[in-house]
Amino acid sequence: MEKRDLRTDFPGLTTADGQRWHYLDTAASAQKPQQVIDAMSRAMGEDYATVHRGVYARSANMTMAFEAARERVARFIGAASPNECVFVRGATEGINLVAQSWGSVNIQAGDRIMLSQLEHHSNIVPWQLLAEKQGAHIDVCPLTDDGRIDLDWLEANLTEQHRIVALAHVSNVLGSILGVKRAAKAAHAVGAKLLLDGCQAAPRMRLNMAELGCDFYVFSAHKLYGPTGVGVLWAPEDTLNAMPPYQGGGAMIDRVTFAKTTYAPAPGRFEAGTPMIAEVIALHAAIDYVDALDPEKLFQHEAELVRQARSELSQINSIRLLGPEQSAGILSFTMEGVHPHDIGTILDEEQVAIRAGHHCAQPLMDHLGVPATARASFGLYSDAEDVAALVRGLKRVATIFG
Amino acid sequence: MEKRDLRTDFPGLTTADGQRWHYLDTAASAQKPQQVIDAMSRAMGEDYATVHRGVYARSANMTMAFEAARERVARFIGAASPNECVFVRGATEGINLVAQSWGSVNIQAGDRIMLSQLEHHSNIVPWQLLAEKQGAHIDVCPLTDDGRIDLDWLEANLTEQHRIVALAHVSNVLGSILGVKRAAKAAHAVGAKLLLDGCQAAPRMRLNMAELGCDFYVFSAHKLYGPTGVGVLWAPEDTLNAMPPYQGGGAMIDRVTFAKTTYAPAPGRFEAGTPMIAEVIALHAAIDYVDALDPEKLFQHEAELVRQARSELSQINSIRLLGPEQSAGILSFTMEGVHPHDIGTILDEEQVAIRAGHHCAQPLMDHLGVPATARASFGLYSDAEDVAALVRGLKRVATIFG
Repeated sequence: MEKRDLRTDFPGLTTADGQRWHYLDTAASAQKPQQVIDAMSRAMGEDYATVHRGVYARSANMTMAFEAARERVARFIGAASPNECVFVRGATEGINLVAQSWGSVNIQAGDRIMLSQLEHHSNIVPWQLLAEKQGAHIDVCPLTDDGRIDLDWLEANLTEQHRIVALAHVSNVLGSILGVKRAAKAAHAVGAKLLLDGCQAAPRMRLNMAELGCDFYVFSAHKLYGPTGVGVLWAPEDTLNAMPPYQGGGAMIDRVTFAKTTYAPAPGRFEAGTPMIAEVIALHAAIDYVDALDPEKLFQHEAELVRQARSELSQINSIRLLGPEQSAGILSFTMEGVHPHDIGTILDEEQVAIRAGHHCAQPLMDHLGVPATARASFGLYSDAEDVAALVRGLKRVATIFG
Repeated sequence: MEKRDLRTDFPGLTTADGQRWHYLDTAASAQKPQQVIDAMSRAMGEDYATVHRGVYARSANMTMAFEAARERVARFIGAASPNECVFVRGATEGINLVAQSWGSVNIQAGDRIMLSQLEHHSNIVPWQLLAEKQGAHIDVCPLTDDGRIDLDWLEANLTEQHRIVALAHVSNVLGSILGVKRAAKAAHAVGAKLLLDGCQAAPRMRLNMAELGCDFYVFSAHKLYGPTGVGVLWAPEDTLNAMPPYQGGGAMIDRVTFAKTTYAPAPGRFEAGTPMIAEVIALHAAIDYVDALDPEKLFQHEAELVRQARSELSQINSIRLLGPEQSAGILSFTMEGVHPHDIGTILDEEQVAIRAGHHCAQPLMDHLGVPATARASFGLYSDAEDVAALVRGLKRVATIFG
């Protein structure tokens, strides 16, 4: 994609004995460029101080760097203001925050929540916990034959009882891409909000909150070539400021007395306690890195790798390819008579890392009629050699089990 | 304390132009030794993979390292099992987790929650949110004249309506040390649980959960010379396993279907989503570092620095020293006619970093009758030169404002 070999930026892409590692598990978590690791080291080292509190210069500088990261996030996702961007532990916490805080006042007994059959557990279980607490119901949008969320069905089945529609922007198992504008229009037509799980989209697509038309958006830094332990919840400021507190503690308050405590506006209201200071600063570096490569090019690059892989793997008879032809960098498959774990283990011997399992999407496995799939997922550092290694490895698996 | 100069391990203890920085804000957040920063870099770099999921060797190795860190935490705090140690974002989240999960089933209308006048906001606001939701009441244990939690009052005023007593093990403002065994006995005598906020104790005292006799313990890694974004909640396994889920998502489930989802036992039950992988591994390195220096020696070392500082500062007429003589490394004070922020700003010019403000403890400020204090807090790297720089700086403040 680039003339420069991006792989040299990533210390994680080499095996302990110096060989090339074919890392095809980027959808689980991305490797991190040295630029991100260095930003983390500086933030933990010579630049370190807490934020939002100290009266000394280094703490003021750290606070500026922390808030500059929030501005960078806002620019990266086309948010109207940094105040729309709440730092959370990851996408999972972001969804739980919305379910618990927004949900506790907006979802009542008899209300309905619309999910889909391909959701990650992190976009199912928080809603189940909420539904159980409030006496609400969950509906499940089925999939098209090729594994996309069926928007015809969605449009036909959303009702005014639905208060929220929560969907994956890109499926973590199949790479299927949601038609967001249609989903938003359908949700808003019945007065429901639309939450998007952007974990797999944020590292692969140019995002613009205004254009997408959703009401909540979440993603994790560690899937965006950034650190673990941090993610982003986006929502309009008036939505966030109308939501009750989620966790209590320092920084999220305006004034605390035992008689009455008042809360700060967003984003501080949802950031109780000392935040993930170094992680937020390293996320800034990750976004700089990804943005410089142009997310639209990354999307094309990874979609092309999926096409190559589909084309080659379709020639191995025992392989069943899952999901749509048009996939955002993620390809799931099964192999007749071979458990996905065995595929993963044999590929590992060939320095090819894929994921095998239910991918935290058991309802989708039920739908596909399999207990598990094998999944190859690409990243900005993936290339045709990785596809070739995958194909070579799978041919070996076919021979061993053939 | 050690013959080797520990300061050389800490890149954060030098100013940008290479001078010695007198960092006296360790109670807000500790500087990190290079050993911790290096552990973080390796975990984000050549060792990086996700945990609990991959079938390839590097992910299995990372999972072992992650769980080895949990075992290290358990050993460090004298826990009976690693399963008693839940990784959270920090102490604030730990308390919120207990309040929301344990509290939602164990605190009912009319029940009482006992806090104290010196608690950090993170040990007040979560209980206020819970009390409001459940219709419970909060009682506030007063302080002795020298700023310790008044255990005579506590013993006399705990009732069988009290379900939980939540107290700071060491005050973040005054350094006051709680008589934990007495507090635990008093709480248990009425059938209440005891939660300890160990943020300031964990970096300064040898902890042993069995000996302390508390029911919940929380602390943050970033105050223990470790990374931001991670902390620990300790509780006995049967307590944790009886608590309802807190956040839903991947890893905390046993089996997900839209009909019924079942949950994993602790600690997984409370660790939804991809955890703070690199942070947990860096926390391991931080504990190794602190443990090698012997927490009991650290306590004596910092208590001695407080004694030195109290002795010297008591000779500046305009200074009012707050808190007890016996303090765990933390000293708050005010200066007649000078706002603490001005003290902090002038000291900053002298390369002395203290904190000025309400220290996330506004009810304690109300009790002390001040809007803010100046606070000097020591760490394992602090020494007599830091005390001398503080005293020198405060004399200059006294001259400027005299």
